[in-house]
Amino acid sequence: MDEKFIIKKYFMPLANGKDSLQLKDDVANIDVADEKYIVSNQDSLVMGTHFFKSDDPAYIAKKSLRVNISDLISKGVRPYGYFLSIAMDDTIDENWIKLFSKGLAEDQKKYNLTLLGGDTVLAPNGLFITINMLSRTNDTIIKRSSASCGDNIYVTGTIGNSAIGLYLLKNKNDNLGLDSKDRQNLIRKYHLPNPRLQTIQLIKNFASSSMDTTDGLINDLLVLAGTSGRVFTIKKRSIPYSVSTKKFLNSYGDCDIALYGGDDYEVIFTSPMKFEDMLNEYAKKIKLRITKIGKVGNLSNHPRIYDEKHEEFKTSNYSFKHFK
Amino acid sequence: MDEKFIIKKYFMPLANGKDSLQLKDDVANIDVADEKYIVSNQDSLVMGTHFFKSDDPAYIAKKSLRVNISDLISKGVRPYGYFLSIAMDDTIDENWIKLFSKGLAEDQKKYNLTLLGGDTVLAPNGLFITINMLSRTNDTIIKRSSASCGDNIYVTGTIGNSAIGLYLLKNKNDNLGLDSKDRQNLIRKYHLPNPRLQTIQLIKNFASSSMDTTDGLINDLLVLAGTSGRVFTIKKRSIPYSVSTKKFLNSYGDCDIALYGGDDYEVIFTSPMKFEDMLNEYAKKIKLRITKIGKVGNLSNHPRIYDEKHEEFKTSNYSFKHFK
Repeated sequence: MDEKFIIKKYFMPLANGKDSLQLKDDVANIDVADEKYIVSNQDSLVMGTHFFKSDDPAYIAKKSLRVNISDLISKGVRPYGYFLSIAMDDTIDENWIKLFSKGLAEDQKKYNLTLLGGDTVLAPNGLFITINMLSRTNDTIIKRSSASCGDNIYVTGTIGNSAIGLYLLKNKNDNLGLDSKDRQNLIRKYHLPNPRLQTIQLIKNFASSSMDTTDGLINDLLVLAGTSGRVFTIKKRSIPYSVSTKKFLNSYGDCDIALYGGDDYEVIFTSPMKFEDMLNEYAKKIKLRITKIGKVGNLSNHPRIYDEKHEEFKTSNYSFKHFK
Repeated sequence: MDEKFIIKKYFMPLANGKDSLQLKDDVANIDVADEKYIVSNQDSLVMGTHFFKSDDPAYIAKKSLRVNISDLISKGVRPYGYFLSIAMDDTIDENWIKLFSKGLAEDQKKYNLTLLGGDTVLAPNGLFITINMLSRTNDTIIKRSSASCGDNIYVTGTIGNSAIGLYLLKNKNDNLGLDSKDRQNLIRKYHLPNPRLQTIQLIKNFASSSMDTTDGLINDLLVLAGTSGRVFTIKKRSIPYSVSTKKFLNSYGDCDIALYGGDDYEVIFTSPMKFEDMLNEYAKKIKLRITKIGKVGNLSNHPRIYDEKHEEFKTSNYSFKHFK
C-alpha cells in the first residue's frame, strides 16, 4: 500500500467541497468571509484504548467522527468539515481502509460533512486516528461556565448503555437477565454513539451551559458544576435509563456502572426555569428525549454535586479515564 | 500521571489566547470576523517513523510544530495557532512532558503561535503526535497548480542536509571527510527543520506556485510539475548545497541522497521572469538565500522534469516515503 494510492482512491472522493482544494495543496482553504467564528475541536482514538482491532472499520470511522460531532453539537453549533490523520501499522490492509472510508462516507452524508485534509502515515505498531472537526458559525457558543442559580439541569437520551455494552463485550458469559436483543442494543451503543443534529437548535435556544457526556454522567456533571463554579443537586431517581439498561441494572444490583461509565455522548445542559415549558414543547416537536435531572445551586469555592438525599457524589472507580 | 493534571500543569499555560477558552470547553472559538479564510493543515509524527525515542523531547515538540509551520509558510500565510493531540504509552514520564512542553513554549514565542486545543490519550504502545495548525488571513494562498510557462523555479536555503544528518546518525562510524562540526550541523538539520517566517512575504509577493520540500527535492518538484501539469527543466549544477553537504557528497560520490532524501522543509516556488530582479533584491533585503534552479515549460499530459542534459529525473530508491 502506498500513501498516495490510498489518498487518491479512498480519501479524495470524500474531499468533495471546494475548501479542501481536492487535497492537492496539503492545506485546506476554508472560506469564512460570512462567518464570525470557527469553532473547532480535536480528538484522538487509539486501538486498544478506544476501540479494538476486531471492531468493524466502518464503526471505528463513525465513532471517530461522532465523538467530535458530539462536542460541537453540545456547544450549539453545526459541524462543517474535518481533518483526518491516520497512523497505522502494516497489519492494516486495503480492505480495512475501504471499509473505514465507507463508514466515513456514510456519516459525511448523515451529518452533512466534508473532508478538508489530513495525513496518512506509517506506524511501527497500532492504529491511531485523530480528527479535527470544525464549525463555521455566526453564533456564540454555549459554554460550560455559564450555569446560573435556579437553572434546571437536563440530559438528552438515556445513559449507561455504552458502558454496559463494553461490560457485556468483556463478560460474554454473564446472563444478567438480558435477551440477545438487549445485548445487541447495548453493545451497539458502545460501538456507535448517536449524536443528533436536532439537538443543536435546542441547545442554542434554551441552554445556559452545556457539554457532552464522555467520561460518565456524574464525572461530567462534576466538570460542568466545577467550570460554572456552582453546587448542583441531582435527583438520582430521575436519571433516564433505557429498557435494556434497566434490566441490566436490576440484575447487576449497582447503578455506578451507568452513572460513572463513559462514552454516552449525550448532552448535559442547564436551562433557565422560565424556559421550562417552551423547552419541553420544543423537545417534543423535534422528538428529542430530554430529562430534567436536577437544579443548579449557589456559587461555591468547592463546586460539587449532591443527590436528593443531600449525599455528595464522588468520582468513582468506574470513572472512565482516557489517561491513567 | 493523570490527563487532567498534565493538561493543567503543562498545556494550559500554552493556551494563552482568548480563542482557546483556556481549554475549558473542549473546543476553540476562533474569531474570524475580520478574515476571509482559515488556511489549515494537519500532520502526524510517529515515534519510530518520524523521530526516535532517544530524541530530545523539546526537538520532537519543535519538529512537530515546524513541519506544519513549513506548510503554511509555503502557501504565503502566517501561522496563528494549533491543536495538539498526543497519544503515548506509559514509558512517557512527567519529565518528558515537561521538556516537550518547554519546546512548544519556545517555538510558540519564536513563531508567535498559540495553543488552541487538543487531546491527551493513553496508547498501549508508542508515541503519536498530531498537530492541526491554522492561519487566519485575508490573503489568497499560493497554490501548487499555478506555475506558468517561462516562470523561473527557485528553492530557499540548501538541500540534503537533513537526509545526510539521518544517514550520519545511522552510520556513526563513517568518516566521509567530515569533521565533528560538519556532523553536528547536518544532524541538527535532521532533528530540527528551520522554516523562516520572512519567507511568507516573499512567496506572497513573487511566487506563482509554491510548496514545501518534505519528500526530497526531486520528488517534490515532480509533485509541483504534476499539479501544475507542466514540464520542468532543472539545472542539476545549480542546486544549492551547504558546505558540510558538499564535503559529504564529494566523499560519498553520489548526489541522490541529497536530491531525493526528505525532510528539508525548504520552499520550492515558481516566479514570473519579470519579477527576477525585484525578487533577488527582496531576498537580499530579508537575508533569505534563494537559488534559481530551473524553468517551467509547456503544459503536458505527462508532466515530468528534465536536467540540463535533457535527461529525465525519476523517483529514486532514496525517495522518503511516509507510508510504504
